[in-house]
Amino acid sequence: MPVGTNATVKAMNQDELKDLGAEIILSNTYHLYLRPGHEAINKIGGLHKFMNWQGPILTDSGGFQVFSLSPLRKITDEGVEFRSHIDGSTHFLTPELVMDIQAALGSDIAMAFDECTPYPASREYALKSLQLTSKWARRCKESSTPHSALRTPHLFGIVQGGTYADLRKQSAEELIEMDFDGYAIGGLSVGEPKNLMYDMINYTTPLLPQDKPHYLMGIGDLLDVLEAGSAGIAMFDCVMPTRNARNGTLFTSAGRISIKREEFKTDPDPLDINCGCYTCRNYSKAYLRHLFMNREILSMRLNTLHNLHFYLEFFRKMREAIENGEFDKFRGQQTPVLQNNFHGD
Amino acid sequence: MPVGTNATVKAMNQDELKDLGAEIILSNTYHLYLRPGHEAINKIGGLHKFMNWQGPILTDSGGFQVFSLSPLRKITDEGVEFRSHIDGSTHFLTPELVMDIQAALGSDIAMAFDECTPYPASREYALKSLQLTSKWARRCKESSTPHSALRTPHLFGIVQGGTYADLRKQSAEELIEMDFDGYAIGGLSVGEPKNLMYDMINYTTPLLPQDKPHYLMGIGDLLDVLEAGSAGIAMFDCVMPTRNARNGTLFTSAGRISIKREEFKTDPDPLDINCGCYTCRNYSKAYLRHLFMNREILSMRLNTLHNLHFYLEFFRKMREAIENGEFDKFRGQQTPVLQNNFHGD
Repeated sequence: MPVGTNATVKAMNQDELKDLGAEIILSNTYHLYLRPGHEAINKIGGLHKFMNWQGPILTDSGGFQVFSLSPLRKITDEGVEFRSHIDGSTHFLTPELVMDIQAALGSDIAMAFDECTPYPASREYALKSLQLTSKWARRCKESSTPHSALRTPHLFGIVQGGTYADLRKQSAEELIEMDFDGYAIGGLSVGEPKNLMYDMINYTTPLLPQDKPHYLMGIGDLLDVLEAGSAGIAMFDCVMPTRNARNGTLFTSAGRISIKREEFKTDPDPLDINCGCYTCRNYSKAYLRHLFMNREILSMRLNTLHNLHFYLEFFRKMREAIENGEFDKFRGQQTPVLQNNFHGD
Repeated sequence: MPVGTNATVKAMNQDELKDLGAEIILSNTYHLYLRPGHEAINKIGGLHKFMNWQGPILTDSGGFQVFSLSPLRKITDEGVEFRSHIDGSTHFLTPELVMDIQAALGSDIAMAFDECTPYPASREYALKSLQLTSKWARRCKESSTPHSALRTPHLFGIVQGGTYADLRKQSAEELIEMDFDGYAIGGLSVGEPKNLMYDMINYTTPLLPQDKPHYLMGIGDLLDVLEAGSAGIAMFDCVMPTRNARNGTLFTSAGRISIKREEFKTDPDPLDINCGCYTCRNYSKAYLRHLFMNREILSMRLNTLHNLHFYLEFFRKMREAIENGEFDKFRGQQTPVLQNNFHGD
């Protein structure tokens, strides 16, 4: 899922996303609640109409953003009081409000409100935290659809538990008992070592119901995606392709490159001769470097288009490999390429 | 001519420019000389190939940019020494170098190197300045095409003379005697009162050869364009549509509006119901306001697309009115609309 935090996948228009083959995008409860407000979007006819995107939209619940963006937050059983990262104003999110917001937006898949357990966290804290997430998940599940709802979204629960396998199990079991439409693994890639992250993914994924979607939140390093895909994860979101694009880091069939490298100044070749994206069909590395060095808007556009194309192609190929029973072969081919880095000047 | 200073019309790709009906774009000698350098662009095969634009390109000579962007400059008969606005490095532009640069870029229309006379300027300064511009124009005209030239550009002379009618006449006569492919009026809209600017346009334009293009440099306020069009000017360039777009000021068939107005927060209508541009066909004022308030890249894209569409449509209609002998009627209809301003919150 390309990430469209503010009801826009940064630098892209919606036709480009469609042409890239994006099947679903992610948007954000926290950001849209603060600006322009879910009521404003509801008045326009919902998020799909607002941003002119006809495909499905998954909305994150805001739990992670409260955790990562708000300078001061106070967590109680009832919910979270936090300060807006935009204007410092105080707000109070509860599971019920978060469900109301997502219904008002007309989200296709809503995420339950959770507390994102930080790393490191003591076992005691992680336990308390997952119990709170379970309580909130139940309240999300039991909350009634508001009048303003444009549809009743599918609802996914979020497994927490920090880096403690038994707590991950407890969290998963409590959520499964509530019978969600899908299950996400949250609270990873928040500072823990990679092997711990992989352990949690590999341990938790098989605990989830086989007939429901499995979603690993916020993880987009493609080496991690291969590990998680191997474990059985089917849904991903990450700002990596878009944010890296804006910072001039581009993914190619030969590895990752920084477009600002001096050697590209007079390079007439496309970024990736094996790539069929709009950027590679129309522009040289020399031009992309020039645009980037001048911080031109077109740089962000062309880079984003390319990176999203690379990511979406990667996922299409991975899906195909899984369907053909050739995932291990695919992983073996991709791993060395993904480890290649051509950075610096 | 949409302005593509850095070999990019800000926020647009080249297919969009083509779809908008842009027939020619302007780019900039000063900027491209400094970054990435005309040799680098020449190596790629020239500016057209570099930026993937197949239509004609007019390149400004750098005279105006040296005047407006360089913190320290020293003008001698030989040329201009100036400091780069990017890194402070010292450079020396001469008429010959400016011609070499434009030939190396593969420009279709090159502008002669001129001194942009500031306002206010004494009669004495303005006279000396226009004489220098004439001398440089002759050197441009007589300079030989360098080996690196991709084509021999058409060459336009630039009439200076400040706000002194007789000096404008002298400048025009000296340039006409050299027989350029087209004639530009420069050094206007640099701080002088509007009536003086109009006087200079109305006085100078009829002095120019009727069978050569007349180009008014850097002026894009459409009320000024109507005045200049009435005087016989046929070519214009200005950053107004693109810069205003990025600042949230949008041109509509009802007048100019600021997209940040609070009242647009829940406005489901397009910016201009009489507009057929991509932005108006696909997005609401509410969404455009939201994107602008979040400084999203898509805001700059959609706003720029709309403003360029408005401008290019305006010029198409003006041309049609001239061809049908209905210019005065067109001017009468457009003037009150262009005077409308819906700004502020």
